[in-house]
Order: sequence, then structure tokens, then C-alpha cells
Amino acid sequence: MKPINKLSEQEKYQLKQKLDQKFEIFRSQNLSLNMTRGVPSTEQLDLSFDLLTCVNENHYRTKNGIDCRNYGGVDGIPEAKQLFASYMEVTTDEIIVAGNSSLTLMHDTFMRAMVKGVMKDSPPWSTLDKVKFICPAPGYDRHFSICNYLNIEMLTVEMTEDGLNMDEIESLVAEDESIKGVWCVPKYSNPTGVTYSDDVVERLANMKTRASDFRIFWDNAYAVHDHTDTPDKLMPILNACKRAGNTDRVYMFGSTAKITFAGAGVSAMAASINNIDWLRSQMIYQSIGPDKINQLRHVTYFKDLDGIYQLMQKHARILKPKFDVIQTTLTKELGQLEIAQWTNPNGGYFVSVNTPEGCAKQVVEMAKQAGVMFTPAGATYPYQKDPLNRNIRIAPSFPSVEDIEKAMIILAICIQRVTLESQNN
Amino acid sequence: MKPINKLSEQEKYQLKQKLDQKFEIFRSQNLSLNMTRGVPSTEQLDLSFDLLTCVNENHYRTKNGIDCRNYGGVDGIPEAKQLFASYMEVTTDEIIVAGNSSLTLMHDTFMRAMVKGVMKDSPPWSTLDKVKFICPAPGYDRHFSICNYLNIEMLTVEMTEDGLNMDEIESLVAEDESIKGVWCVPKYSNPTGVTYSDDVVERLANMKTRASDFRIFWDNAYAVHDHTDTPDKLMPILNACKRAGNTDRVYMFGSTAKITFAGAGVSAMAASINNIDWLRSQMIYQSIGPDKINQLRHVTYFKDLDGIYQLMQKHARILKPKFDVIQTTLTKELGQLEIAQWTNPNGGYFVSVNTPEGCAKQVVEMAKQAGVMFTPAGATYPYQKDPLNRNIRIAPSFPSVEDIEKAMIILAICIQRVTLESQNN
Repeated sequence: MKPINKLSEQEKYQLKQKLDQKFEIFRSQNLSLNMTRGVPSTEQLDLSFDLLTCVNENHYRTKNGIDCRNYGGVDGIPEAKQLFASYMEVTTDEIIVAGNSSLTLMHDTFMRAMVKGVMKDSPPWSTLDKVKFICPAPGYDRHFSICNYLNIEMLTVEMTEDGLNMDEIESLVAEDESIKGVWCVPKYSNPTGVTYSDDVVERLANMKTRASDFRIFWDNAYAVHDHTDTPDKLMPILNACKRAGNTDRVYMFGSTAKITFAGAGVSAMAASINNIDWLRSQMIYQSIGPDKINQLRHVTYFKDLDGIYQLMQKHARILKPKFDVIQTTLTKELGQLEIAQWTNPNGGYFVSVNTPEGCAKQVVEMAKQAGVMFTPAGATYPYQKDPLNRNIRIAPSFPSVEDIEKAMIILAICIQRVTLESQNN
Repeated sequence: MKPINKLSEQEKYQLKQKLDQKFEIFRSQNLSLNMTRGVPSTEQLDLSFDLLTCVNENHYRTKNGIDCRNYGGVDGIPEAKQLFASYMEVTTDEIIVAGNSSLTLMHDTFMRAMVKGVMKDSPPWSTLDKVKFICPAPGYDRHFSICNYLNIEMLTVEMTEDGLNMDEIESLVAEDESIKGVWCVPKYSNPTGVTYSDDVVERLANMKTRASDFRIFWDNAYAVHDHTDTPDKLMPILNACKRAGNTDRVYMFGSTAKITFAGAGVSAMAASINNIDWLRSQMIYQSIGPDKINQLRHVTYFKDLDGIYQLMQKHARILKPKFDVIQTTLTKELGQLEIAQWTNPNGGYFVSVNTPEGCAKQVVEMAKQAGVMFTPAGATYPYQKDPLNRNIRIAPSFPSVEDIEKAMIILAICIQRVTLESQNN
């Protein structure tokens, strides 16, 4: 195998023939392989069966006697605050433990910002002529959807190998008061798998923002989702913000969605005491309290932070082979061809593939014809628009190793075929 | 005993002496009786122990195979939609089954109305100079708090014996486009215990509103919370709205907070298909889905609507003696005195007492000195302002029958004492 752009016309023709033959064989198999779902597999969910019944008629109170079945406690039960404070590397004054979805916490924080602003004396965003958000991309489509829903203009900034292009971000936020925040998935980023370097975290905490009500939305969804014994390390951003004198700059989000049950976990939000007090003072209008029983379940099941780490090791044993087969298959099929790059993350839920420019949409389309579903090309960008039309997200957690291998072979075929075709044009 | 205003000065003096003696005896007992908590008692919560463990490692899927542990299903699992549709007397297309709190559904509906309006072409309320809401009172303080939080002007309309003063409401909404809705607790209203008559429901459905985006917030929190075999009947309002050609006028809310677990129940929202489609199209930005496991628990535990009714009969057996002791004690202590009226509801969670005008605050204050806590006078009115300063809310569900009896004796002493004092001035 040699790089595709070094092939003679004759070799290209032969390769096309060969690829078409292979493709037809797959197409005739009526496959149905779904690589779009960033969700835990059944086997992973089965790890936490004990969670379902660990709260029962003999155990439904907190240590200090709160009956978790009844009303009350808007920011969570004490032991859940303790556990999630250690999980998110903050104090128990800096956390709110909530319901089953960190997406809900993020969305609701935006809604409050729209209607009430982010601080006592800051203007509601809905009263401003223009609100903009920095959206590192490729990124998480649901983040971008919230901005789009609220008519917040998204400024696409390409992800880099150490996280963010801080030169570009610093220059944007220093000049434009209408830029009110930045979306971040700082560890094992969706979909690139990158973890922000210490330098990136420090610069985010320290940068001068024209907007005094600028907020970092720090969606640390994969904080403990390591696949290896040498996991990435992320600098705790709240501490960095404190050191920088920008204590109120960051809202941190986390959940057990990809630790216990994706739809029935516990979420939490951490920030400065100022921010938490302000948010709590508003959340009392929304809720008398979260589902405390489910919080008690989680605390009972985990016992402590170490319990979370132990469970994550079991997840890693299930996930690692799925990520490995992507690497081995793509390396085998595409390694020498110089037409694609892909990430090899130490954790998280995604692998990100870059095709030659202008090819991603067609590759996804072609794979679909062979029964392989990938996330629509562009979905990982604001306005569903990948400017270079090259990024494809692979979500290998749910399918089996065998299915992933097959899907990767087909992906490799499609990338080669579309690349060859595009070079002809 | 004769009416207080028929007593001679001498008799009044003697009564004061007697009341002060009785009061001192209670005060010396260092009582601590809390009549403020509209929450289920421990005994009631114990009724639903089976709910905790009825979903387990052998049962976590819906009938059609959905794994309730995983992501998805923004509007609830099919069997929960079916159960709550029958509970709320609508079709499964007219319902969204959500998380643990109907208050959250109400708050979030307001937030969406503020930011996006209530329909595709209706203006966001936050863009209007003024938004007003009709607030029947005495009513539920958390409803009024939401309006206050969002700077929505509250128009107090006194509750009547058959629900609402419809003459007043019809005339208000016909004239003022800035009146965007009305809060309703239509059955066993908090705190008066009144159930809206058919006439009130029909008139709400039919009335001409100047605002085309007018909405009834129908918080049917006590839909099945009957204490007797001859429960109040409430006309289904969505049908009435359909008949009136105002299909999109009403948002209905319900939950199992006072059926299973107050803090860990399931809530639901019902409305026209138009409304539900619009709301669902926005909720996808807030959540990938509610806690489906908890929905499955509830469906498994109840089986069907009859299961809910059976459980409610058990609640009634616990609650009835608590409501009865209020009636017998107040009748015995105040029945002949013509200084107080109180409700005698067929269900719900509250009894509402009216003292002579101008006395409620002092009565609550005096009772507190004897260790009896009542909801602060005024709390049941918009802006915490009871214009006649006479309404006191009693919440008897949590304390024991003995404690309620004692609290009612003390309340009767305080009402008499404060009334006598006020007549002197």
C-alpha cells in the first residue's frame, strides 16, 4: 500500500475496481450497523444492577435523618453533595446535586441567563441586541443546539491537539462584549477525545474578557471515563479561576449518565459560592427538590469516590476493545494511504475521523448504502456546518467489537472510494 | 357560649382571663407543633414501599422493549403516557410524562413562554412591556412566587364557594391584552378545599380573552385526593376547551407527589396536541429524556388507574381523622362564637380558616408563642398580602391527630383572644 496520491492512473483504476467489489459484498449482506449512538451498552448498564434495589424499605433516610421520599432539599442530600464535590474537585458549598440530566442543568442555566442574567446586576441576555458564544468544534451537537434555539450566535473555533486555539479565543473575547461564554468538553472531548492542556485551562481562567458576565460552560462529561492506566489529567478549572481572580467565571457540569444509568443517573453543577448561591436562589422557584431517593441510591451504591473509580475500571474493560478495534482496523485499512487522520483517545466515548477536505458528507452517505450509520457529517459543528466537510464522529460504545470492525472496514472503503472520486473532479 | 359580639364588657373581661389562663398552660408545655407542612406523613409514604424495589435486574424494560436505564424518550415511556393520560382524562397524544416535579413543569413552561412565547407566532412574554396573571386567592404560594420571580404582575381575585369569581375574571381578560393567564388549583384547591363547579370550568373554557395567547395553568394537584366516598367531581377542562373552540387554552399539570413519594414521584403535563407538539419541540433542547426507570416503577406499582384509586383509599383512611379532628375541635371551641369560618373539604391537603378582618397575622404570631407554627398569614396571597388580613392555612397531613387537636384548641384560644383585643381598639 502506498499513499493514494502517489498511485498511477492505472493503479487508481484498479483500486476503484477492487473497492467497488468489496463494497458490493458488504452491501449485499443487508447490514444494519449503528455507529451514531454515544450511549452505554447493555453490558455496561448491567454493571449497576445493584443500584436499582439498594434503597428499600429498610434504607431510605440520609445519615442525618432526612426522609428521602418526602419533599425538600433543593440542592441535594448532604452525602450526595459530599460525593459529587469530591468528584468535581470542589467544596460542598460549591455544588448543587440535581436530577437525571446535566443537559437540563446547562439548558436551564441558559434560560435563567436569558431571563435574569448570570448575576444580580448583570443584564438578562434576552435584553441584549446580540449574544454570542464561542463554540469549539468539532464539538457536542446538543451544546450548539441550545445556542441555536436561543438565537445565540455561534463562533466556531477549531479544536486543537491540546484543546483550544487560545490565541484565537483570547483575541475574540477581549474585543467583543457580546461574547458571553464558551462551551467546553475539557476531558476526552466529544468527539475529538482531546483533553485540555494545563496551559489551555490556565489561559481560559486568566484571559481578559470584555464581557464582565462571561461564563465558561465546563461540561466535564467524561471526567473519570478513562480507558487506560495512564489516563489524561485535567487541571481543576475552578481553582485556576480563583487563582486568576476570576472566581465566578466557570459553571461546571457532571453526571453519572455514563457511570451508572444514562437515563436515570444523578447530575451536578459546581461553581463559585457566589454563583451557587445565586443559582440556588432561583432554583427554589423551579423545584422543591430533586429526586433524593435516586441520590441516596447512588451514594449507597458507590459509597465513595473510590467506588466510582472501581466501577469505571469495569466500564474500561468493556470499552477498551471497542476503541482498540477502531485503531487496528483503520491502521490496517488506511494507515499508509495518507488520506485520513483519526484520534486515539485515552478515554471518553468517541473517535473522530478526518477525511480529505470536502469528502465527509459523501463518505457518510456511501456507508449508509452499505447499512452503516454514522452521525451526519457536519453535526459536530455549529449550524451543522463543517467548513471543511471532513469530520466524521464514531461512537463505538454500544455496538459489538465485531460490528465495529465491520463498520470500520466499510468506512475505510468509503473514504478511499470517495477520495479517489474527488481527485478525479 | 354565645357570639362574642353579644357579650357584655364584664363577660368579655372574664373570657379574656379564662383564655389567658388556658394559653399560659399550653405555653408552659414548650410545645412544638408544626401545622405548615403540606406534605405526606411518614405513614402515608410507607404505603408505597413496594415502589422502591419493583424495578430490578429482572425488570427494567418497557413492554415494547425499551431499556429504561438508557437515554431517550423525551416525553416518557409508552405505558406511563397511557396511565397518566387516563389519570388526566386526555389521550396519549396530549400528554408528556416527565420527572419528579410538576412545579418544574410549570416553572419551565413559564420560562419558555418568557423566552419563546407559547406558540410559534406568539411573542415571547419577556419582549412585552407588561405581562399580568390572574391569581385566585387564597392560593398556592409557589404559583405566585413564579410570577413574582418573573416580574409578572399579579391580579388578585378572591376565591368563591364554587371556585372562581367568573364575572370579575371574564371582565378582566376581555379588556386587557397583557393578561396572559390564570393560575388554577381546580379540585380541593390549596388552601380553600373548593372544587370548581361545572359552570366555572365552562366559563373558563368559553370566556373571550383579549390576549390570543392566554393560558390557563391548571394545577390539578389533588385530582384523586378524595377523603370520602362522595368525592367532588371536576369537569374535564380540555374537553370543555375543545367544545368552546379554545383547544389550546389550557395547560394541565399533575403528579404522584402526594400519591407515592413527594420528592420521588412522576409528574405529567397535558394539553392540546398543538401545545404538546410545540412544548416537545422545545424540550428536546433541555433533556434527552426523563428518568424512565422511575416511570416504569410507577407503572409497575400501580398497574392501572384503579391501582391509583386503591392507594388513594389508603391515604384517605390516614388523612380523614386528621381533617375530622379539625372540624370537631373548631366547632366545639368556636362554633357558637361567630368570629371564624373554616372550610370542610372533601379532599386535598388543607383547611382554610378566616378570622375576623385584620386579625390573622396576630393570631399566627400568638400561636407561635405557644409553640404552634402556622403558615405565615398572607402567604396564600399574591405579594404575601392578604388584603383583609384574615386567612390562615392549616396543613394537617403530617402531624398526628393528637397534635392537630392540641393545635386547634390553641388556634381557637388565639382567635378569640385577638378578636377580643381588636374589638377594644
